[in-house]
Amino acid sequence: MIKTDTIVAVATPQGMGALGVIRLSGAASFSICEKVFRGKSLSQQASHTVHYGYIYENEELIDEVMVSLFKAPKSFTTEDVIEITCHGSTYIVQRVLQALLNQGARLADAGEFTMRAFLHGRIDLAQAEAVADLIASESAMQHSIALDQMRGGFSNQLKALREELINFAALIELELDFSEEDVEFANRNDLKILVEKIKLKVEELLSSFKLGNAIKNGIPVAIVGKPNAGKSTLLNTLLNDERAIVSEIAGTTRDTIEEILIIEGIQFRLIDTAGIRTTTDTIEAIGVAKALEKIGQASILIYLFDINDTTLEEVQTAVKSHTRADLRIILCPTKIDLYAPEAWENWRAALKPLADAVIGISAKEAMNISLLKQEMFATVSHINTQQAIVTNARHYESLLRANQSLDEILTSIDHQLTQELISLDLRTALSHLGSITGAVDNEEVLGAIFGKFCIGK
Amino acid sequence: MIKTDTIVAVATPQGMGALGVIRLSGAASFSICEKVFRGKSLSQQASHTVHYGYIYENEELIDEVMVSLFKAPKSFTTEDVIEITCHGSTYIVQRVLQALLNQGARLADAGEFTMRAFLHGRIDLAQAEAVADLIASESAMQHSIALDQMRGGFSNQLKALREELINFAALIELELDFSEEDVEFANRNDLKILVEKIKLKVEELLSSFKLGNAIKNGIPVAIVGKPNAGKSTLLNTLLNDERAIVSEIAGTTRDTIEEILIIEGIQFRLIDTAGIRTTTDTIEAIGVAKALEKIGQASILIYLFDINDTTLEEVQTAVKSHTRADLRIILCPTKIDLYAPEAWENWRAALKPLADAVIGISAKEAMNISLLKQEMFATVSHINTQQAIVTNARHYESLLRANQSLDEILTSIDHQLTQELISLDLRTALSHLGSITGAVDNEEVLGAIFGKFCIGK
Repeated sequence: MIKTDTIVAVATPQGMGALGVIRLSGAASFSICEKVFRGKSLSQQASHTVHYGYIYENEELIDEVMVSLFKAPKSFTTEDVIEITCHGSTYIVQRVLQALLNQGARLADAGEFTMRAFLHGRIDLAQAEAVADLIASESAMQHSIALDQMRGGFSNQLKALREELINFAALIELELDFSEEDVEFANRNDLKILVEKIKLKVEELLSSFKLGNAIKNGIPVAIVGKPNAGKSTLLNTLLNDERAIVSEIAGTTRDTIEEILIIEGIQFRLIDTAGIRTTTDTIEAIGVAKALEKIGQASILIYLFDINDTTLEEVQTAVKSHTRADLRIILCPTKIDLYAPEAWENWRAALKPLADAVIGISAKEAMNISLLKQEMFATVSHINTQQAIVTNARHYESLLRANQSLDEILTSIDHQLTQELISLDLRTALSHLGSITGAVDNEEVLGAIFGKFCIGK
Repeated sequence: MIKTDTIVAVATPQGMGALGVIRLSGAASFSICEKVFRGKSLSQQASHTVHYGYIYENEELIDEVMVSLFKAPKSFTTEDVIEITCHGSTYIVQRVLQALLNQGARLADAGEFTMRAFLHGRIDLAQAEAVADLIASESAMQHSIALDQMRGGFSNQLKALREELINFAALIELELDFSEEDVEFANRNDLKILVEKIKLKVEELLSSFKLGNAIKNGIPVAIVGKPNAGKSTLLNTLLNDERAIVSEIAGTTRDTIEEILIIEGIQFRLIDTAGIRTTTDTIEAIGVAKALEKIGQASILIYLFDINDTTLEEVQTAVKSHTRADLRIILCPTKIDLYAPEAWENWRAALKPLADAVIGISAKEAMNISLLKQEMFATVSHINTQQAIVTNARHYESLLRANQSLDEILTSIDHQLTQELISLDLRTALSHLGSITGAVDNEEVLGAIFGKFCIGK
């Protein structure tokens, strides 16, 4: 599994900039680099030092560079690592890369630098996955969770609990060796207490996933209403107000009908749905079906309507058709700047029992827009950032399976089943828990995980 | 002019990557960085060393980083410089930048790092300009010229000649002090020889500009012919063959009707023109006018025609209408795979006197396409890369003016004019020559030059 050849890749984003960085890792990093570098003899320099020189290919000068040296094991991968900082021209970066490839380095696979850090034991698998999340993070909350995970996060808690479970598993395996003597090295009651303790932690992590997933991918907010209810105006008002923050999120490629809004570090995905009504037009019917599907995935639904052309019954029917236990519904009568306060108060009283919140707005006058944002944020304001949050679908799957195995252990104990069966359940649970941190792994799983990384990481 | 505050900017391209680099320069680099960095005490570390640690803003962890230290004067700007290498997420890069701004660093202006290197005398102005060219270089030849210029290039030759001229200027100024005594410290004949020597160099550089400009901006090639003559097919065949090279040029934003083709390191801009014919349609007339304008700027014209529906007279008329002293015309009869060799030979004999080259092609069968490329490359194959080439319009302007002043010195000497007048001519010539390397400068010129850089360089 562990490859020992020397890999190389461009580590900086594509495009033009002041600097570009090309990174080498492996036993031959120094000897390969010295074939193209003119300056001091690199292998004679101390680790963690930077040196000025030139990159040549044959007799052709390619660039003036700075070379940073990291000697094994004090590097990101724990191998010999060299970072070459050149001028940030796509042409030069490619030429330097090519020169190193020509001297025997191999182009790194996606995520291979991080994979080597994992395979050499510098970080565990969940930490390695967090590196990719960290690079992709676009909001304060995504960043904070990825960073926490990269520094150990819930891995450490799981590892400690798994260690305890391994002890019991060992004792039960020992019982198997003495099976004819009917001894019991592992106290069944202590095992039950431990399994329940682990289950508590696993379930806590499982329950954090819905939130974690929402934070990682953005909380889906469906904006719904009859045609001309003011959906696009509201969308623009919400986004305009945050233009500075929105424009910072470069490089995101998402469904074009979705817009990203960040409120207090949390990312919301605003989905502008097609007007929903019964229709005989086929094309329009497809649009409506898609809108309904989007609403089915949303965590928040904002229902917009103009009091003037809407009856209370219509609102009731609409709310009823969308109601779901895990959907927060916010009713937003629009253009309230045009109504007398008393008329509006009557409406509000009638609407209040129907939904989680009622906020009369005027997108045009930007009335109550910040109130609406507060209400959206309230959906996730109970987040305790001190608590571990699972954001990774693979971890969630492993935790689900581990939880099932833990249930089976408890059942086996309660039914006083044989050591063989309890031992089997224990091994399954250990395997699922271990797969999160990479204590148990296989090539297929690792390939799938690191293949999602960008090349150079 | 020299600002002494500490500047900061993101040095790597925008977007997502494994690494991002934020660079600080100025006397307060270390003290500002230490306010956000947790790890070793940076100011106590040696220059050219790299250190592991964390960036914090207040009590919030932002990222794990590596920090490279460059102490004055051994740095790019000759000031204290720190490069912080963090994870390549847009969010993190912006947060680290913001943390440093909050501690008193100022966001660097475009090109300000390079400008400081110039103002502190580490590089001259022409070298500084070459840094921007180097970053923008997309072909081997652009890269080679920029690199040569960055390492001194013709600056050094000009500087030496200018020194000699300064000596004469000083002697003539001395004559002015003794003007009543009618002495002649500066031998007029020696001065004339020197001025002619400088003029020779200046004219050599001036004559290299047309080529240099073509290399820097790509050599414009107009592909011309009647509608359906096969222009687009040829364009696709030329580009497909070079797909790998073309796709490497990321981040170029050019007129959409132009395509970039690189032949042996030289960049060609292929311009697909609208079919040219007399028309009464207004919209189409605008298209034809634009096509004619493009042809007017081209260095090479490829004229495509189908022998089947074209007479020799038509070709003659077309060639005649485009002929220019500095335009290389290549005639390309198309679909020659469909003709008998003898018929084709007759045509070739008739066409040969009309143009610089005749190449019968079949774009569909990729016949003679490489021959056509060789012919395009022949336009610039006389380039002597050992010779200095001027690529910068500002340098060209300064050289033009210097040349005029040198002419005026010669005239003044020939007419035996007074020291005052010769001295004035000398100062003007020195000023123009000096403006290339920045020996003579003013804020306005510097602002214009460095304003074109990207921020972070």
